[in-house]
Amino acid sequence: MLYEPKIGMSIDELDTPALLLDLDAFERNIDTMAAFFADKAAVLRPHSKTHKCPEVARRQLAAGALGITCAKVSEAEVMADAGVSDILIANQIVGAIKIDRLTDLAARCDLMVAVDNPGNVQDLSAACLAKGVTLGILVEVDTGMQRCGVRSAEDALALARLVAQAPGLEFKGLQGYEGHLVHTLDPDERAAGVRQALGLLKATKALIEMHDIPVPTISGGGTGTYDLSGTLPPMTEIQAGSYVFMDAKYVQVRPEFENSLIVLSTVLSRPVPERIVTDAGLKVMPPDFGWPKLLGYAAEIAGLSEEHAKQVAPEPASVPLQPGDRVQFIPSHCCTAVNLQDRLYVVRERVLVDIWPIAARGCAQ
Amino acid sequence: MLYEPKIGMSIDELDTPALLLDLDAFERNIDTMAAFFADKAAVLRPHSKTHKCPEVARRQLAAGALGITCAKVSEAEVMADAGVSDILIANQIVGAIKIDRLTDLAARCDLMVAVDNPGNVQDLSAACLAKGVTLGILVEVDTGMQRCGVRSAEDALALARLVAQAPGLEFKGLQGYEGHLVHTLDPDERAAGVRQALGLLKATKALIEMHDIPVPTISGGGTGTYDLSGTLPPMTEIQAGSYVFMDAKYVQVRPEFENSLIVLSTVLSRPVPERIVTDAGLKVMPPDFGWPKLLGYAAEIAGLSEEHAKQVAPEPASVPLQPGDRVQFIPSHCCTAVNLQDRLYVVRERVLVDIWPIAARGCAQ
Repeated sequence: MLYEPKIGMSIDELDTPALLLDLDAFERNIDTMAAFFADKAAVLRPHSKTHKCPEVARRQLAAGALGITCAKVSEAEVMADAGVSDILIANQIVGAIKIDRLTDLAARCDLMVAVDNPGNVQDLSAACLAKGVTLGILVEVDTGMQRCGVRSAEDALALARLVAQAPGLEFKGLQGYEGHLVHTLDPDERAAGVRQALGLLKATKALIEMHDIPVPTISGGGTGTYDLSGTLPPMTEIQAGSYVFMDAKYVQVRPEFENSLIVLSTVLSRPVPERIVTDAGLKVMPPDFGWPKLLGYAAEIAGLSEEHAKQVAPEPASVPLQPGDRVQFIPSHCCTAVNLQDRLYVVRERVLVDIWPIAARGCAQ
Repeated sequence: MLYEPKIGMSIDELDTPALLLDLDAFERNIDTMAAFFADKAAVLRPHSKTHKCPEVARRQLAAGALGITCAKVSEAEVMADAGVSDILIANQIVGAIKIDRLTDLAARCDLMVAVDNPGNVQDLSAACLAKGVTLGILVEVDTGMQRCGVRSAEDALALARLVAQAPGLEFKGLQGYEGHLVHTLDPDERAAGVRQALGLLKATKALIEMHDIPVPTISGGGTGTYDLSGTLPPMTEIQAGSYVFMDAKYVQVRPEFENSLIVLSTVLSRPVPERIVTDAGLKVMPPDFGWPKLLGYAAEIAGLSEEHAKQVAPEPASVPLQPGDRVQFIPSHCCTAVNLQDRLYVVRERVLVDIWPIAARGCAQ
């Protein structure tokens, strides 16, 4: 008999490991974020790198999101295929092959992309011109993350001027992502950091507008900082992604969102009373931000191997798990855990109510 | 124009990130391992958790491997679909849903599985009996890895007796995987550890055979220990997997195999002379065993984010990389890097000669 999960099944009938989405918690997360942005000047442009799932994007848009943020061209292709019409690819798209894919995509949706160097601007312009398409451009400013982006208002101005004059390109504004602050636990430290990051964006916008180039869009922010970036000038759109699922790390920073993403796993062995071995390891719950969190039992993860998690129970008698029992984990990083699965098993009150394809899973190009 | 890699392309025409297989190095690895086992009593049963790729399995079998080792039932289903007829699932398969899939699989290939507790033996026997299939059983012995497995010869004997009497099951022998030693750098320390691990298996085999239960198979070993486990009694088959690809970690332990698995990546940005940002991050090169290794440039990885690697060049002038340039990385752990990709781009002398589907990618159930 072929194993085939059916809507209406109990989660007890699902094979493991399985990635569950707690639909009630997910819907509350969507609603909480939508309610926050309902009366703000900035709008939400949620990042699809977290979920890679057109159905999640559809629900974010239905709840008021302006459009979608993507990390990669291949991810944006999947979202456009699913009908998303307004997409920001929040990274530099470099090289002839990728620019060819990008400009094809620009022909079928409203598309923006980030730039941080003049050669790339010229390449993008030439490709857009050749295909007769227009591409929106955000000049990325490094507000402290020290990854990509220009590092001064003057450099941003120079690039903005180049973009404004480049055929096929439309200068839309700036991008500044305060990724170095999204996991900062202390609210005061986080707020101070965000104010500083936004200060550079504010000065950059002022300088560019002084040169008669309008800066309608300033995009950035994340789940850790949405309430700051989303209310302070000059941000106009916020790229938060993780709020829909949360994870063991992020929920410490933003307790107003709930863990909706759960790894369902089975106990394989309890070879000694202190040790419980379960069937999901590195290939299901990457430990980017520490070990996943085991729910409901007084046992600590002692290690992950590819296909196993090893738990140690300091007081074995208090942990009645035996082979065949089911346990649940919260991954430490939702984005990489989702990127390992082909489908989300959507559950409400322990019943499978839907299966959502993670259609952009693995879309790293 | 749809992006579609074509056989005969230069790797310069491949979009990135892409997972390349250097076919010459891969074939040498296959040959080196086959030559080693050609005159040994033990045989090779390579682990497909590393490659998840039926074409790799086919080549391993063509080079003399006895059969294939799998980590999971879903992985074994893919290998059986591809025509592999002799499979060991080297883990405990627990719970009604999984056992149902397992016993279906037993109807269409020679199948063995590991056990380490009596309740699981009873469940497997009942399921085999109900379906009229026979399942080979290895009793797993913990030889020091402290994951699954019984911990004494006496416990192994008790389980072997139970298996030998259980309808639908055939006691085939023992499994003992010295996973705690496969990355040990010092050869003497590694050898001493392996001898100790094999000592327990030897004593266990002797005890079980003293009770008139033959122990024809003893399976274990890995790429780090194949030359020890593969030549010392009592091992009869070796489950090495990583030798086909190798990675930045394993090549330090076993320099006789070559790195054949390469991540092709593009420079996205060089915002300051010291910093080079490339387009493959956590979602392509998981840092299970440290950072991936950048080939050919004097720059150190300073961090991975989901979609980026950040390199720092202590002497910027000696690293002439600019946006659009291609670089190559060796992942730190081949098994989890492969599990993120749908295909291997097979190259010989920088030309794409084949594309192999990683058909069991994501098969964690």
